[in-house]
Amino acid sequence: VNEKNFARRAAALPTTFPAPHFPSEMGADTKIFDSAFAAPELLPDLAELASKILSDHKEELLQYSPTQGQPYLREWIAEYLTDDGCAGIGPNNILITNGAKHALDLICRLLLDEGDLVAVTAPTYFTMLPIFRSFGVRFIEVSQDTQGIIVDDLSAHFRRLADNDLPLPKIVYDIPEFHNPSGVTTSRERREKLIELCGRHDVLIVEDSPYRRVRFTGDDIPSYKALDTGDNVLQVGTVSKLIAPGLRIGWVAAHEQFITRLIALKSDGGTSALLQRLVYEFCMSPAFRGHQPQVSSTYHEKCDRMVVAFRREIPEAEILPPDGGYCLWVKLPEGKDGDLLTAKACAADINIFKGSLFFANAPVFPENRTVPKNFIRLSYSYATFDEIDEGVRVIGEIYRAL
Amino acid sequence: VNEKNFARRAAALPTTFPAPHFPSEMGADTKIFDSAFAAPELLPDLAELASKILSDHKEELLQYSPTQGQPYLREWIAEYLTDDGCAGIGPNNILITNGAKHALDLICRLLLDEGDLVAVTAPTYFTMLPIFRSFGVRFIEVSQDTQGIIVDDLSAHFRRLADNDLPLPKIVYDIPEFHNPSGVTTSRERREKLIELCGRHDVLIVEDSPYRRVRFTGDDIPSYKALDTGDNVLQVGTVSKLIAPGLRIGWVAAHEQFITRLIALKSDGGTSALLQRLVYEFCMSPAFRGHQPQVSSTYHEKCDRMVVAFRREIPEAEILPPDGGYCLWVKLPEGKDGDLLTAKACAADINIFKGSLFFANAPVFPENRTVPKNFIRLSYSYATFDEIDEGVRVIGEIYRAL
Repeated sequence: VNEKNFARRAAALPTTFPAPHFPSEMGADTKIFDSAFAAPELLPDLAELASKILSDHKEELLQYSPTQGQPYLREWIAEYLTDDGCAGIGPNNILITNGAKHALDLICRLLLDEGDLVAVTAPTYFTMLPIFRSFGVRFIEVSQDTQGIIVDDLSAHFRRLADNDLPLPKIVYDIPEFHNPSGVTTSRERREKLIELCGRHDVLIVEDSPYRRVRFTGDDIPSYKALDTGDNVLQVGTVSKLIAPGLRIGWVAAHEQFITRLIALKSDGGTSALLQRLVYEFCMSPAFRGHQPQVSSTYHEKCDRMVVAFRREIPEAEILPPDGGYCLWVKLPEGKDGDLLTAKACAADINIFKGSLFFANAPVFPENRTVPKNFIRLSYSYATFDEIDEGVRVIGEIYRAL
Repeated sequence: VNEKNFARRAAALPTTFPAPHFPSEMGADTKIFDSAFAAPELLPDLAELASKILSDHKEELLQYSPTQGQPYLREWIAEYLTDDGCAGIGPNNILITNGAKHALDLICRLLLDEGDLVAVTAPTYFTMLPIFRSFGVRFIEVSQDTQGIIVDDLSAHFRRLADNDLPLPKIVYDIPEFHNPSGVTTSRERREKLIELCGRHDVLIVEDSPYRRVRFTGDDIPSYKALDTGDNVLQVGTVSKLIAPGLRIGWVAAHEQFITRLIALKSDGGTSALLQRLVYEFCMSPAFRGHQPQVSSTYHEKCDRMVVAFRREIPEAEILPPDGGYCLWVKLPEGKDGDLLTAKACAADINIFKGSLFFANAPVFPENRTVPKNFIRLSYSYATFDEIDEGVRVIGEIYRAL
């Protein structure tokens, strides 16, 4: 294979296969705290429903279907978002995708040219970093505190970019609910401030919202999409965190002028109508109404269990218990090496992520930016209580021996 | 929405929603001869199988799964290709995708930079044209005759490019079996000649092979992938034409160095394991063994029916009955306007494609290249015998009134 045949940016792509990572690739003794897999006990029983829809709608489900997605599912999502406070959303504002990452990838393809800037929080969702990088962008890293993205820091970046005759970022990417990895939920004040700043500068906001309905505590705060009045927000949703990741149904909610172009870029022959109808029928069923509170309470209990375990095993770690979601962001005392802790934990079959993974680490203005090494990220979503207790106990042992 | 926020190449994307096109969007009286939809009567009954796998493998099917695809399905595809004459193919040479178009899109992303050249036959599969264009490429159009791609014409292009200090095309894109739209099956001699030429010049071949197993007549000819000894061929396959398009399972078969990089570009959170296992279990079932000959014989009969109808209604049309596949390419006498015929047929609820759609029409060397207007393309795959008879009868009426 002659590498001169690859596209220029493909030179940075991996030349080895990914390491085993998914539950099906792990031994039974492995504690899976790395990726935010679904709790097995929450996966719904869809056998009967799948059989029924394949009987009742065989041709629809097995034929090619429209690229934008089935009208009934787009209608349902539009109503779901309207109920969630988004005004003026109809089925033409929705594009169904093969999961949320596919939606984010398509948005990048629509908006990003090589060399463009993208603003991300520090830390940010690490899976997005290689996707952004594959488009050849540079990063603006915006600080975050317990109220969410620090809009004054973003604003200072905007000024500094203008002072240096550099363009503003094309998009600001954020996860306002139970931020992955930090767990922070952005306050209403910060949300309004971000919408105002980006609206004034005509910068688009990509709101990644996988966990919004997995809230344990506190009251809903309107989404960026709900607060936006200027069509500046593209919101990405998914059923992965609420129903099941294996269904691979996500969506973009945005102004029609984004949707028409995204349809043209979605070169997949349409998302499987079988999966679309399975999601739709489940969402319309009585089972769904009971499912949602069960999801929240199950992850709430798992989250509490892991917080308690850390407070017992590593009391000096700082943890902000999230109001929802699947993940815990653990700050070790300064000077403690989270990367080393992660390597040793993984070697002991306790899969966690090092916090340093979650930093873009390629800022336009690099001075004064260092990637902190004293963080680890854990998902409590997949594991049992016993696995959480035992896993965190061993992490504590490794930590004390560092 | 401010268009300055879009990527440069997004300016060419459509600003309106696609017109209705899919069977579910059409009235009952419409004759659907345009896209190659599956014959409804051939769609397998998967209700029981779906129910069984969702009971037996619930966690596997509803959890995130590896991006490359489930090992058992990659193993099955590798054996399927080995049986088809491809040497040295194992599961690590396979990437599962969300249908074949997704595979082709990923290959473009891996290989193509803006301004690169792509060689396509004239005519070529029209759905690929906007995908290629979204990568900002230019086209080399290679002539085709009843033996397939004219390799001497491609070779002449190579020489002319070199004489003009232009780079060779990054890829040659072709459909050697029952070419879409022309129906031509490339001869073994031409295949060997193409492999030799591209091997010598280190140009990659993208072999799009959706219809290979839907052969009615004649003997199998080894695929490009089977004939290639230099890892110069990326072959794209799918179950859409053999089982059901709605399952959206396709694949790339290629050297590992392509696969590792394609995995990194496949930012979709993995193809649904539910769909992967449904395909796998169906392929392993006794039903599949009976299904394949039924597919071939059904489409053969439909093809014959449409050929006979055209010979009755428009005897002066030239038709090369294909040895397989879903589509018929009809050449009207010179001077007859296939575009106008298509417009009038569609207005009469007989959906066909104008032949001029199938030409890249943006060649690097434009002189002496004109897009012929005396072709139409029809799929016989979806329609009933009566619809074929009645649809072609009306097309004949419209033709005579042109």
